[in-house]
Amino acid sequence: MLSKNLIKYLHSLQLKKYRQEHNTFLVEGAKSVLELLASDFQIESVVTTDIFYKENSQKLDKQPFRVEIATADELSRAGTLQTNDAALAVVKTKPNDFLYAEKGEYVLVLDDIRDPGNLGTIIRIADWYGITKIICSLTTTDWYNPKVIAASKGSFTRVRGYYTELAAYLEKVRNTEQGTGVYGTFLEGKNIHQTTFTDTGYIVMGNESNGISPTVEKFVSQKITIPRFGGAESLNVGIAAAVVLDNLQRK
Amino acid sequence: MLSKNLIKYLHSLQLKKYRQEHNTFLVEGAKSVLELLASDFQIESVVTTDIFYKENSQKLDKQPFRVEIATADELSRAGTLQTNDAALAVVKTKPNDFLYAEKGEYVLVLDDIRDPGNLGTIIRIADWYGITKIICSLTTTDWYNPKVIAASKGSFTRVRGYYTELAAYLEKVRNTEQGTGVYGTFLEGKNIHQTTFTDTGYIVMGNESNGISPTVEKFVSQKITIPRFGGAESLNVGIAAAVVLDNLQRK
Repeated sequence: MLSKNLIKYLHSLQLKKYRQEHNTFLVEGAKSVLELLASDFQIESVVTTDIFYKENSQKLDKQPFRVEIATADELSRAGTLQTNDAALAVVKTKPNDFLYAEKGEYVLVLDDIRDPGNLGTIIRIADWYGITKIICSLTTTDWYNPKVIAASKGSFTRVRGYYTELAAYLEKVRNTEQGTGVYGTFLEGKNIHQTTFTDTGYIVMGNESNGISPTVEKFVSQKITIPRFGGAESLNVGIAAAVVLDNLQRK
Repeated sequence: MLSKNLIKYLHSLQLKKYRQEHNTFLVEGAKSVLELLASDFQIESVVTTDIFYKENSQKLDKQPFRVEIATADELSRAGTLQTNDAALAVVKTKPNDFLYAEKGEYVLVLDDIRDPGNLGTIIRIADWYGITKIICSLTTTDWYNPKVIAASKGSFTRVRGYYTELAAYLEKVRNTEQGTGVYGTFLEGKNIHQTTFTDTGYIVMGNESNGISPTVEKFVSQKITIPRFGGAESLNVGIAAAVVLDNLQRK
């Protein structure tokens, strides 16, 4: 049985305040925990069902973290998933290190993405398309929110995030990296089917309701748009990110 | 104040059984109801807040359905949205009419899409890319589920669905429409970036966990795949549909 203190600690990590206080976050469910065990993240502890433990004891035993056995019911109540019959881990967050696009690389820039499901989906899409760095505005939802981690389906282990004030960041990019494209999606932008992408660059995705903010728009050197053939007013930001990255990577 | 009978009726429409019994479904929220009012759907009744009614009285008054005024709180409790400060409508479902790809047209085929959010997202994406017909396996989640309607963001008014047994349907397509491509996404398919699409065709998207079923796979004439550049294992089916349709429409 899990101790009251541990349950209290696990519950506290659903809130950003306590994740920042402890520099730890939750990873839940079989797939996410398995991807985590194969990554370089520093794990503090794992709570696992007896079955999941037996199936993965090799991966769990050789490492220097605490392992606790719990029932599926205890696991579900300790975490945020509706059901979890596998495992949950408490993991050290990574430092908020500066990231930028190296030569030949593309980086995603998120201007005020508020929905955790959208951020997690975007991390997963970035990972599919080989993008390993995402710059987030300070108003973007917390990377370590359990819903973000769950929606990323393990891709949080391969993609890094850097939170910063975007105007200052993009100002720096513009001054130090000549010839780097900063692409942003706008309704009146150039058709992405006819866009040639520079070798190195940044792709800015805007807020779910308001798109890219005016302060960030000033730094966009190439306005692009996903052509519309029917009646829908808009696409979800995750969908738009996938279509843009597919066009970027097809060259 | 809404009558107990009306509230009971509205609640019943959250279940497929009662939607089928009454041949009606729920449309909720400002955007969806406004798109509905501009469509050819037959509306049975609208429950609206006083504010939404006043803002849209021209659209609401000229039509032959019952209008009831309610508070935002009553509206939220009567429907499925967490908050709804605008309106809710009870609408007649459309008959399950046979649909097929006419010359020069593409149709989506959904093989066992279970998640209502995914179906709604796919309807919205189809609408963006000018696809107006979707064929659904009998195991695909119900088109008129309130979550499907909500996720479609009004696109349910422009896209038609037809539920049928897919093997028999695709057998018929194969026998009657020569030269029509039936495309389906498989891990081992041909890179969509190098795929040339026929003028007329069908694009099959498979179940969230299992992909396209073996019975349906037999009818796929062109296996295609979205190339992967990074580490993620898969893409969500809505994301995959968007990327495939973007590649189809770029020709």
